[in-house]
Amino acid sequence: MSIRVGIVGISGFGGGEVMRLVANHPSFELVYAAGESSAGSRLADRFPGLSGKLAELVIEKWDPETLPKLDVLFASLPTGASAGALARVPMDVKIVDIGGDHRHVEGWAYGLADVWPAQIKGQVRVANPGCFPAATLNALAPLLVDKLIEPANIVIDAKTGISGAGRGGSDSRFGYAESNENLIPYGLLKHVHMPEMAETIERLSGGSASGLVFTPHLVPMTRGVLVTIYCRGHATTDQCLDAARRFYAGRAFVRVTEKPPQTKWATGSNLAFVSYAADPERNLVIAMGVVDNLGKGAAGQAVQNANLICSLPETAGLEGAAVWP
Amino acid sequence: MSIRVGIVGISGFGGGEVMRLVANHPSFELVYAAGESSAGSRLADRFPGLSGKLAELVIEKWDPETLPKLDVLFASLPTGASAGALARVPMDVKIVDIGGDHRHVEGWAYGLADVWPAQIKGQVRVANPGCFPAATLNALAPLLVDKLIEPANIVIDAKTGISGAGRGGSDSRFGYAESNENLIPYGLLKHVHMPEMAETIERLSGGSASGLVFTPHLVPMTRGVLVTIYCRGHATTDQCLDAARRFYAGRAFVRVTEKPPQTKWATGSNLAFVSYAADPERNLVIAMGVVDNLGKGAAGQAVQNANLICSLPETAGLEGAAVWP
Amino acid sequence: MSIRVGIVGISGFGGGEVMRLVANHPSFELVYAAGESSAGSRLADRFPGLSGKLAELVIEKWDPETLPKLDVLFASLPTGASAGALARVPMDVKIVDIGGDHRHVEGWAYGLADVWPAQIKGQVRVANPGCFPAATLNALAPLLVDKLIEPANIVIDAKTGISGAGRGGSDSRFGYAESNENLIPYGLLKHVHMPEMAETIERLSGGSASGLVFTPHLVPMTRGVLVTIYCRGHATTDQCLDAARRFYAGRAFVRVTEKPPQTKWATGSNLAFVSYAADPERNLVIAMGVVDNLGKGAAGQAVQNANLICSLPETAGLEGAAVWP
Amino acid sequence: MSIRVGIVGISGFGGGEVMRLVANHPSFELVYAAGESSAGSRLADRFPGLSGKLAELVIEKWDPETLPKLDVLFASLPTGASAGALARVPMDVKIVDIGGDHRHVEGWAYGLADVWPAQIKGQVRVANPGCFPAATLNALAPLLVDKLIEPANIVIDAKTGISGAGRGGSDSRFGYAESNENLIPYGLLKHVHMPEMAETIERLSGGSASGLVFTPHLVPMTRGVLVTIYCRGHATTDQCLDAARRFYAGRAFVRVTEKPPQTKWATGSNLAFVSYAADPERNLVIAMGVVDNLGKGAAGQAVQNANLICSLPETAGLEGAAVWP
Repeated sequence: MSIRVGIVGISGFGGGEVMRLVANHPSFELVYAAGESSAGSRLADRFPGLSGKLAELVIEKWDPETLPKLDVLFASLPTGASAGALARVPMDVKIVDIGGDHRHVEGWAYGLADVWPAQIKGQVRVANPGCFPAATLNALAPLLVDKLIEPANIVIDAKTGISGAGRGGSDSRFGYAESNENLIPYGLLKHVHMPEMAETIERLSGGSASGLVFTPHLVPMTRGVLVTIYCRGHATTDQCLDAARRFYAGRAFVRVTEKPPQTKWATGSNLAFVSYAADPERNLVIAMGVVDNLGKGAAGQAVQNANLICSLPETAGLEGAAVWP
Repeated sequence: MSIRVGIVGISGFGGGEVMRLVANHPSFELVYAAGESSAGSRLADRFPGLSGKLAELVIEKWDPETLPKLDVLFASLPTGASAGALARVPMDVKIVDIGGDHRHVEGWAYGLADVWPAQIKGQVRVANPGCFPAATLNALAPLLVDKLIEPANIVIDAKTGISGAGRGGSDSRFGYAESNENLIPYGLLKHVHMPEMAETIERLSGGSASGLVFTPHLVPMTRGVLVTIYCRGHATTDQCLDAARRFYAGRAFVRVTEKPPQTKWATGSNLAFVSYAADPERNLVIAMGVVDNLGKGAAGQAVQNANLICSLPETAGLEGAAVWP
Repeated sequence: MSIRVGIVGISGFGGGEVMRLVANHPSFELVYAAGESSAGSRLADRFPGLSGKLAELVIEKWDPETLPKLDVLFASLPTGASAGALARVPMDVKIVDIGGDHRHVEGWAYGLADVWPAQIKGQVRVANPGCFPAATLNALAPLLVDKLIEPANIVIDAKTGISGAGRGGSDSRFGYAESNENLIPYGLLKHVHMPEMAETIERLSGGSASGLVFTPHLVPMTRGVLVTIYCRGHATTDQCLDAARRFYAGRAFVRVTEKPPQTKWATGSNLAFVSYAADPERNLVIAMGVVDNLGKGAAGQAVQNANLICSLPETAGLEGAAVWP
Repeated sequence: MSIRVGIVGISGFGGGEVMRLVANHPSFELVYAAGESSAGSRLADRFPGLSGKLAELVIEKWDPETLPKLDVLFASLPTGASAGALARVPMDVKIVDIGGDHRHVEGWAYGLADVWPAQIKGQVRVANPGCFPAATLNALAPLLVDKLIEPANIVIDAKTGISGAGRGGSDSRFGYAESNENLIPYGLLKHVHMPEMAETIERLSGGSASGLVFTPHLVPMTRGVLVTIYCRGHATTDQCLDAARRFYAGRAFVRVTEKPPQTKWATGSNLAFVSYAADPERNLVIAMGVVDNLGKGAAGQAVQNANLICSLPETAGLEGAAVWP
């Protein structure tokens, strides 16, 4: 018996990635897809590799009040476009919101699935973390919980492939010739992902996340997020690695590595890599986190959260290894 | 009951891709991995995302005479290194050779799985086609069989991502700075893939493949093969598309498209795309074929062939959609 | 005494590249720049590296009837936008049109500067060849003139970096995530560059260019054009190389190489590379041509043509070696 | 009257870039080139675009005791290979060492040409800064001198294109398929560039550079360095920008921008871009610096230093704008 799934925002990279994962999911069946720019066309017009029933699914115009019978809805709408619309979706439809409007909002669980899965099970409204928070919080969680670092004055230097720059759908603002062979800092001093990171840092540590600094950069590649996080603490590298191994023992998707993680280790998968390099003499702990921005950074974690709230094995449909090289 | 599988050449991109597909295959279990450069290390040392039993598998030094009990062996050895070694593998171990030594050799089926699967079922020795032949022959087969083009004087202009340049393992000769942002023709006038293409063209058409021309080019991307094939014939575009749709009706992995195929439509999957543009007035039929050089061009087709000779559903473990963008 | 130069279409990649070359030209002084999207801004707003007087030049709204006093105008306007507008520019202003509207039009010299510079000197209206014709015709000219190949049934398989896909300005239609790691054929069977190539082939050979085939492909890199041209002829490789060396003896920008040319050998320069591989038994001559689509394929050749019509040394401002790696 | 120049390490990217700049320099004439891997071949064998006398220059085997008559020698040898060898070069040959062996060594000027050109003029031995220090120190100098930031506890998060990873020659260790579409942190906690950065920070500020942190990352592009530097200070953004404008007033190569700098603004040139974003409330000053790792990060600054010590205009041969897109 399959679980009836819908995706709104199918035109975007996040929505498209959810579709790819759902298409190969043992329990989920995609019965509804809605999008702005592609309403009226078949899914196969947009994703030429599809076949069978899925290929013929027609993309609808998004209307939360005329949904077919669904069990789970994945929402990947532009910032600001979720809140009002999703409020009109019936409560018997579970929602995983990949967009940012409901993160740390009352009534919505913050879907950091590798860190507090127990808080997500049983929920019907899940706000999926942003891509940078997904990488950052997975790396910091063990250190914050074990108090190996101070929660204050954390500096996050973030790098992302261009599919994750928050431009949503396939109508990217970034021309190839302008972005290729180019590294671009942006969102200096304030960024929409900071509040959810600060909030989570405080929840995990019990302390204040004052002085949080976050600087994202666009990298000339399609997928991948790496965060290099500079923290204050007197822990050693081994203490950090050990804390992470204990924290993530038995968890399916987080790999703790001694070597600095490369983004391509995660590409095309729902994996997250974390690593650490510390120098107690300089009161310095460097934490590194890697995810695929469309994997753990968006659709992968969304499907993982959907598995949790549907009481399915967490790894259902997500067991693929990274695509390498 | 799982089928015991081994991979020799695990250090190479082809061997690594077979591993990725086998790791998520419902019936195959990887119990043996052998390689040159990584003998003695764990699989997880080479593929940091792995976990569980597969991660701990130790890579052995390749010796065809001391194999464990295997049902299927995938061989991805350098050119010239297969023939002697595989001859010493017991006949109760089925072999799919991804390397080129056994193509169109007596006793080995040529594994063009989308074109003549019936010739592969029941075999115990399968020679997997090269990446360029995989793309080329899938595109040409319907036209040759329906005699819509002449088998002689076919001109194949081929483009490949750099992981498929025939350099095998991860010790690529191609430095990043030299290859990036660069397009390089090579193998002018003669190339190791020509004999198998000529042979197959002749088998499919019943005619002579004289005057075959093939020019490969390295493209600055990791995966993907596109062949643009210039043929002589008086067919129309619609006749070609129609022939292909009939030829591949019911086949799981070949997509016939009206629009010219893009390599990224196949990346990370076992899909092949074919398309045609013809101008009867110029006695010209252009056939286009796209595959992922590590997918249908190597490991994907190898696993598909293994499914065929193990009497499994052809699509087992290969249902993943292309990873896009 | 400097020559007063203007550029219309400064917002496009072609116009921007002309500016880069003119900025460092010993005789040209840029005194006028006009564009659509950037009218009103300073040049330095668009090109942050500029300094001095050039940086402060204000981009005007294009109006051919209110030009300042100019000696030479470079026009890089969208297709169709040149013809009417340039007709209103006074005849005492020399024009080099980088756009396609005037190629092989009465009253305009076709600016194939490496092939027939004598036909360009003394002109006041020059139509710069398109990027694919620049690469193609430089490679074919020696063979056509020496009758080493038939002018009919030439097949040109072309590859271009994305800055040269004819999208003009910096508002590229090609999103990074869609184009990156992707090879895309387009313009099948007919392309706007075919008439000028056919016309020139006929002029150089005295024969008919019937059966001309041209297939362009987008390659995931910023700059570079390579054409692989399949011709009929019984010449040997050495005969072709020898013909090219004689044809281009003393010419500053064309390099005849034995090895197949790589696009990066030309990047950032006005160089063109040509090479040949022939098989008399198959009545086959493969000619290869490489240019930087913004160099010899557009702005470089435009400045070279301007040097010719201003009676300057052909190499003025164009002596830079390719930027490598 | 030209200045006789030699390059040892012509096989490497740095040496090759010096050659490109010298080839187009109004006063320098390349009369000697030496390298390991290419000794015996002509320059044109290695750089196919060259012509004329320069193309025919034969690459010699490096021997500091049998140099021809030279005025200036550029040395681009592997780390550790410079010190002994260059000590045997006669004192009447000026040396600019692009390698790291002589940085902040007695008797050698540290060639930070945009910051203290007066300390370089008149010298005969110049140690060219490393690529990361070039970007970092140009960005920090104005803030250190004006005491807008503390010299201690500076955190430098650095990103470099792969040609600058310190692999020297063209025999890069980095295979294309492994490096492409991948972001890789390396050199965690200690890196060979730290001593020269700490030393210079102390010289410019008069204070201690204790607690310096530096983390480099490999970015999938050929050229470009960006450093994002986190400093402590109560300055405002405008104070930082103003200090930089005053510091670099009249200097030819440094651009102070309000927008965060992109690496491609400098590619192919000797430009350096600096920018700042400060938040006094968080005691935070973010400084950003961009160079082309082969430009200002190596060969460009080396030629600029050579201009200084030869009493030539600083901009000789270096006036080229960035190659864009």
